[in-house]
Amino acid sequence: MPSLAARIESAFDDAVKDAQRAAEFQALMSKADSIRDTVVAGCDKKRKKLSALRKEAKEAQESGGLSEEEASRLTVRLDEADGALQQARRLRPVTGSLFIRLFLGSVNVKVSHEEDRKKLKEEYNKFKSRTNLLFILIPLSWAANIYLLSDWLSYTHWITVFGHIWLLYYYVTLALRENILRVNGSRIMSWWIVHHYISAAMSIVMLTWPFTSLHEELMPSFTVFFLSQAVVMQFQAFYQRRRHYSLVAQGKASQMDVTNPEGLREYNTTALLVVLVVLLMGTYCFELYLSYSMLHAAIYHPGLQLWRNPMFYKQELQVVFVGAAFAVLAVGNTISLVRTVSDKCVR
Amino acid sequence: MPSLAARIESAFDDAVKDAQRAAEFQALMSKADSIRDTVVAGCDKKRKKLSALRKEAKEAQESGGLSEEEASRLTVRLDEADGALQQARRLRPVTGSLFIRLFLGSVNVKVSHEEDRKKLKEEYNKFKSRTNLLFILIPLSWAANIYLLSDWLSYTHWITVFGHIWLLYYYVTLALRENILRVNGSRIMSWWIVHHYISAAMSIVMLTWPFTSLHEELMPSFTVFFLSQAVVMQFQAFYQRRRHYSLVAQGKASQMDVTNPEGLREYNTTALLVVLVVLLMGTYCFELYLSYSMLHAAIYHPGLQLWRNPMFYKQELQVVFVGAAFAVLAVGNTISLVRTVSDKCVR
Ligand SMILES: CC(C)(COP(=O)(O)OP(=O)(O)OC[C@H]1O[C@@H](n2cnc3c(N)ncnc32)[C@H](O)[C@@H]1OP(=O)(O)O)[C@@H](O)C(=O)NCCC(=O)NCCS
Ligand SMILES: CC(C)(COP(=O)(O)OP(=O)(O)OC[C@H]1O[C@@H](n2cnc3c(N)ncnc32)[C@H](O)[C@@H]1OP(=O)(O)O)[C@@H](O)C(=O)NCCC(=O)NCCS
Repeated sequence: MPSLAARIESAFDDAVKDAQRAAEFQALMSKADSIRDTVVAGCDKKRKKLSALRKEAKEAQESGGLSEEEASRLTVRLDEADGALQQARRLRPVTGSLFIRLFLGSVNVKVSHEEDRKKLKEEYNKFKSRTNLLFILIPLSWAANIYLLSDWLSYTHWITVFGHIWLLYYYVTLALRENILRVNGSRIMSWWIVHHYISAAMSIVMLTWPFTSLHEELMPSFTVFFLSQAVVMQFQAFYQRRRHYSLVAQGKASQMDVTNPEGLREYNTTALLVVLVVLLMGTYCFELYLSYSMLHAAIYHPGLQLWRNPMFYKQELQVVFVGAAFAVLAVGNTISLVRTVSDKCVR
Repeated sequence: MPSLAARIESAFDDAVKDAQRAAEFQALMSKADSIRDTVVAGCDKKRKKLSALRKEAKEAQESGGLSEEEASRLTVRLDEADGALQQARRLRPVTGSLFIRLFLGSVNVKVSHEEDRKKLKEEYNKFKSRTNLLFILIPLSWAANIYLLSDWLSYTHWITVFGHIWLLYYYVTLALRENILRVNGSRIMSWWIVHHYISAAMSIVMLTWPFTSLHEELMPSFTVFFLSQAVVMQFQAFYQRRRHYSLVAQGKASQMDVTNPEGLREYNTTALLVVLVVLLMGTYCFELYLSYSMLHAAIYHPGLQLWRNPMFYKQELQVVFVGAAFAVLAVGNTISLVRTVSDKCVR
């Protein structure tokens, strides 16, 4: 074994080498920054110039100033230029949607480090699977409230409130992460994000709903709905993990997909998909049923008088909003599911 | 003017050059990535090795195996190595606190592009100044509710609920942005972030507070408190902008500071700071007063019976929590303000 002094010297050399690497990293980053600045600064102007040239070429062709052959040669050139600019435009900082702006401001959420980008999706999936238990516990706490606790405690509405605040948090963080994922190349359909916006808005409206007898009447259906949804989501996550295994096994997994440490297994996902679609359609029917019962109540329930003076409204608007939102979710989900599945069949 | 074909050709060349630059950017980024990976992978091990060597050197010195002179030479070497490693460790991806993990997952929020980093602070300040109006409108809507709307409408509690949800959103997004700013070099004291956590928790608890006569009694004080706080925050923002002008003018503004487009003006910020401190101390006294009146009510108010069986609690816990939270805020704010101001005096 070398002497202590020699070992300290070699550890020192090692550390200095790392510090040099860090300095090199910073130098690369600032060089990359200045390249990005140059490219981004000119991008929009160049794009406009190209479309102006395209227009000019078209006019020249129409007025006979350009032969057909020459015109098509120029069009190809313009297309190539557009493609190249498209490539360059990928460097632009992107905030994505208003939703990201609401929570983080107009900051760049496009992640330029490959490793960090992979981590985004990994963390998203982890979050979903970790919180699934809570998604079961919340409706269970509601059920406990309805059938047990309300007999013992004189005030239990806070249980409902906490549940809605948790749902609000859940949908907000999902929507936030999905927006960031989209900016970074995920192919997630925008409807699923809109779905989470609507769900968050529903939680907010539910928080404004006073605790009336109608509220009490509807709570059991909500509770059963959320419980069944939690079970379906569990199955959906299972399906997506399985599908991922087989995608990776076939070498088709995209950049944004997570490589699962448990290893790869071949699995026929088609059968699972069929079961999942049936379960999902069941959930959407449940949503339609909830929508129907709320809109029906809005019109016929003795505690509600939608046609009365709005000044006297107590919960009318909440019932209508949540009822309508469930209908929108059911229809939107069905359309998106059909599109996703038919896309899968074509592939 | 050159011919159309020539102009298209030159636009094409331009676009291709940009695409090449974009490719170069990607190449730089992946090179930076691999450097980061190398450095980060060994960092913790090297650190442990250094502290083991340090221990060994100390033992050797104590057992007389090392001369004093040699020992101090080696210690200097070890210190230098530690410093170098510290440099290298800056490349590690950082998530920051649990709060970021809750909303974005354990993803890297350290921003390596200089421009993007500046934007973070800029957007944070913009958010604060843009929402200041809402911070005034929300308590005004509460006042309108108390003194006007509740006579006309039969259900107005939703106004209070919306207010609390807005406050919840406000404090959550502030805390989220501040956490990200901290990871990226802001010197913001952690208390101000904790302050926003506590405020968010208070909004959640307020949402579970049933609409009782005590709630109604306390709403006017809350309303006045939030209104006065909004005014003080307006003044605080004014002070921070002014201070920033003079810092930039003196060339002292740090990397995270925002360069304001309105240009620089010399301004004596000390007088402003004195006024601000007086206003802030007034706000903290108000917080103490609210805390006192809530804790007093918790004990003496006829509608509350804290010493009763907890099964009969209706709003007891809410009153105690919010009352205690106001006290914590008042004390914590005062300590932090005194520390900030005395730091400023020393500088
Ligand atoms: C039908 C379904 C399972 C198909 O999932 P899939 O096989 O992963 O679908 P695709 O291959 O088209 O996915 C494309 C991308 O969108 C993502 N995605 C698909 N559905 C999603 C959803 N509901 N939420 C979030 N992300 C979704 C995928 O993860 C994939 O992301 P990637 O590009 O980053 O890898 C899925 O769309 C689904 O579960 N839909 C129903 C959701 C629902 O109705 N929930 C509410 C009631 S329980
Ligand atoms: C006293 C005060 C005005 C000093 O502000 P300042 O002069 O900017 O203080 P410092 O120079 O110590 O600031 C250090 C950093 O912390 C930030 N900071 C200071 N107080 C902050 C606060 N309350 N919230 C958010 N950020 C704050 C500054 O912007 C600066 O950030 P930077 O490093 O990114 O540039 C400020 O701390 C303050 O307003 N405190 C009271 C806040 C309060 O009590 N609010 C609730 C009742 S209204």
